[in-house]
Amino acid sequence: MLQATSNYLQKKGITSTTVVLDKARAQENIRRMTQKAQRAGAIFRPHFKTHQSAVVGRWFHDAGVRHIAVSSLAMAEQFADLGWRDITLALLFNPLEIDRAAQLARSLTQRGGRLGLLVDSPHTAGIISAAMDVPTDIWLKVDTGYGRTGTPWEDGETLRSTLAACQELAVPVGLLTHSGHSYSARSAQAINRIYAETISRLRSARDQSRRHGLRLSVGDTPCCSAVDDLSACDEIRPGNFVFNDLMQLDIGSCRIDQLASATVCPVLGVYPERRQVVVHGGAVHLSKESLPGPNYGCLGTAGPEGLGDVLREAPLVSLSQEHGVVEFARENFEALAGNLRPGDLVLVWPVHSCLNCDLMREQMAVPLTI
Amino acid sequence: MLQATSNYLQKKGITSTTVVLDKARAQENIRRMTQKAQRAGAIFRPHFKTHQSAVVGRWFHDAGVRHIAVSSLAMAEQFADLGWRDITLALLFNPLEIDRAAQLARSLTQRGGRLGLLVDSPHTAGIISAAMDVPTDIWLKVDTGYGRTGTPWEDGETLRSTLAACQELAVPVGLLTHSGHSYSARSAQAINRIYAETISRLRSARDQSRRHGLRLSVGDTPCCSAVDDLSACDEIRPGNFVFNDLMQLDIGSCRIDQLASATVCPVLGVYPERRQVVVHGGAVHLSKESLPGPNYGCLGTAGPEGLGDVLREAPLVSLSQEHGVVEFARENFEALAGNLRPGDLVLVWPVHSCLNCDLMREQMAVPLTI
Repeated sequence: MLQATSNYLQKKGITSTTVVLDKARAQENIRRMTQKAQRAGAIFRPHFKTHQSAVVGRWFHDAGVRHIAVSSLAMAEQFADLGWRDITLALLFNPLEIDRAAQLARSLTQRGGRLGLLVDSPHTAGIISAAMDVPTDIWLKVDTGYGRTGTPWEDGETLRSTLAACQELAVPVGLLTHSGHSYSARSAQAINRIYAETISRLRSARDQSRRHGLRLSVGDTPCCSAVDDLSACDEIRPGNFVFNDLMQLDIGSCRIDQLASATVCPVLGVYPERRQVVVHGGAVHLSKESLPGPNYGCLGTAGPEGLGDVLREAPLVSLSQEHGVVEFARENFEALAGNLRPGDLVLVWPVHSCLNCDLMREQMAVPLTI
Repeated sequence: MLQATSNYLQKKGITSTTVVLDKARAQENIRRMTQKAQRAGAIFRPHFKTHQSAVVGRWFHDAGVRHIAVSSLAMAEQFADLGWRDITLALLFNPLEIDRAAQLARSLTQRGGRLGLLVDSPHTAGIISAAMDVPTDIWLKVDTGYGRTGTPWEDGETLRSTLAACQELAVPVGLLTHSGHSYSARSAQAINRIYAETISRLRSARDQSRRHGLRLSVGDTPCCSAVDDLSACDEIRPGNFVFNDLMQLDIGSCRIDQLASATVCPVLGVYPERRQVVVHGGAVHLSKESLPGPNYGCLGTAGPEGLGDVLREAPLVSLSQEHGVVEFARENFEALAGNLRPGDLVLVWPVHSCLNCDLMREQMAVPLTI
């Protein structure tokens, strides 16, 4: 089975560690989320930090997407240069970048678009208000339970003082949250509970803000994937769903046939006595994100039909800078890896596709698709 | 204290997440290791995967270094383009890259240099032998206890058959090991024990190989930093020592004033009620490498004298893709962070400088030095 995958990948001309995308699966993931947003009557603003790719961005554009989220000003500028006009810089705004942000806001507005920025303090809202010379969308970042950034949902006073600090062309448009604690869920039921709580807390924050026109924007992939009815949201901002990964699979927010990115790694060494194969796929390719085990990824199959199956019996049990160590279950080494040799290719499913693609970002500009 | 560091870093013109190098410290680290290699009568072949930087490479060149190690063929080509002529591709050779490697070997040889490759199987040795049209140094990778790649040191039969497969222009020059298990040591005594065992096992492997002219090459930073007398080696290949990091500090293989790289991160949010500050410094900047705690880095100081102290009371306790959460010890929040605001800058010491610099590789081409 591994030999067939290796032969197929070699025919694609791969000779070194390379990200591969299953275009059909990714486009289906995009189509499904686009339709879900439409059914909910919500704006679909996918987070482009997952892929950071002009090519994948075009797949979204082809599906009708016109609003995007990014995670750095540099990424916002990159996608603005590629023609995107409605961009939310979806992490708390860094006041030191106010001049560059004002320039980007002008440029997007001139082209009929809009820049969105996130704040959770009157301090930052004031800096943006003082600097902008074109209308800029201000989202109040609300902490609905994740505990990372944002004004706590029950802190009406800070919400109101932050809104009051939005003056001139800094236009408060909504309350935005990232329920990152959904990544700790391991069932659709648990995710639905987190989503319900998120919406209830966002609504409570809106009540306390006393601005009933504020829109509600929700972002995490587990909730956006696993919850059927998102009609309580005015906007959804998932990113990870376009490729999914082993973490989403473990959470229960995707199926195996919705995994759309993987990394092809050359086999460097074969060690039957310890049932291990060492591949050129390490922390600089896959990141050190892990699942319990520890598990830094696991092998898979690929062929003319695209990306294939997940081989749970062949996890990457350790990862150093350049090397990944695949350890086969006792009964599987001979059957799966018995005839592998240095120079064969294996397919590795990543634990976290966003970090994997960020590390491979030079390749992601024009990714290899199968 | 944090405010003084922030003011100093802002005067340097930093506005977004940026790696900074203390040039004087890094050059002193290079000078010390160069002298240690000289005293040992060993070739000093620093591993350039740590910095991947043309500028830092010049600092090594200025110190007299002419031999380097790299961790991918692409990195070998990059440094060959920069004028380096004696390059060891210090991970097991991937046979799929034989054509590119042969071309690089020709190019280096024409300029009076040499390419070095690593093998641990007759299979790969045979492929190199068949393809090379200029002399190429072959290093037998030996596993002296780390358990990742290499022929086990006691497996004389494989060592001899691999040597026998080195034909024509594939010239066996030595036995090479990476004692990566030294990273688990936490005292000079423990590191010295690992080093002594490494040398003893390499010598035994050489005896079993029946080629007494083979050179011995040792690579890990903990051993090369903490062991006084390296005269049993013919070559040393440390990389991490040029910058060191919190892991080397915990291992006991460097001092605080030998930490030479850090990442400056803008403050995005301040949360006194949970004694936390959230910075724009996440897994895409620092990597998810961690020390027990967990600790994904910790804050430090900087000023006109260069990089400064390590603030153990201000660790990064969690890390997502873009965000780092700094949690201050109870008694320290007001004193250290009480007046921090979004847009201030903090200095973060990385757990693992190699992964941090790899993530910031675009900046490392011409890094900011202080």
